[in-house]
Amino acid sequence: MKARIIVTLKTGVLDPQGKAIEAALKSLAIEGIDGVRQGKVFDIEVSATDGAAAEATLRTACEKLLANTVVENYAIEIL
Amino acid sequence: MKARIIVTLKTGVLDPQGKAIEAALKSLAIEGIDGVRQGKVFDIEVSATDGAAAEATLRTACEKLLANTVVENYAIEIL
Repeated sequence: MKARIIVTLKTGVLDPQGKAIEAALKSLAIEGIDGVRQGKVFDIEVSATDGAAAEATLRTACEKLLANTVVENYAIEIL
Repeated sequence: MKARIIVTLKTGVLDPQGKAIEAALKSLAIEGIDGVRQGKVFDIEVSATDGAAAEATLRTACEKLLANTVVENYAIEIL
């Protein structure tokens, strides 16, 4: 079973990497970008065949390793 | 207008970062993960109000900066 986890910074947390990308886009003369925030995506192959079990495994993975829940949110999508 | 760009490695391209995450999950005793591939997500605020114009801007941004199209795919979602 395939799943996708998206980890993004919480609102209000500064994102210098996003700011750098925004500045780089401006310097490339790409206009009309008002803000950029960068996050991470994990495409995961899970061996569980039932959705609830897969989601439980992935939630543990997020809490323990993939996301820093102090400053990041995560979303799990089973595909 | 908000948009999300997801950049992932093309199939067949080695992903040592993904492999490291997979190994780290195993060492944390999180079982049932058969594969991990990491990508990037960009949450972008675009000033264009029409979807086609926004998508054109974002496509240029991907081609010029956000994705290395030799080894990466990108997907643009207007939210």
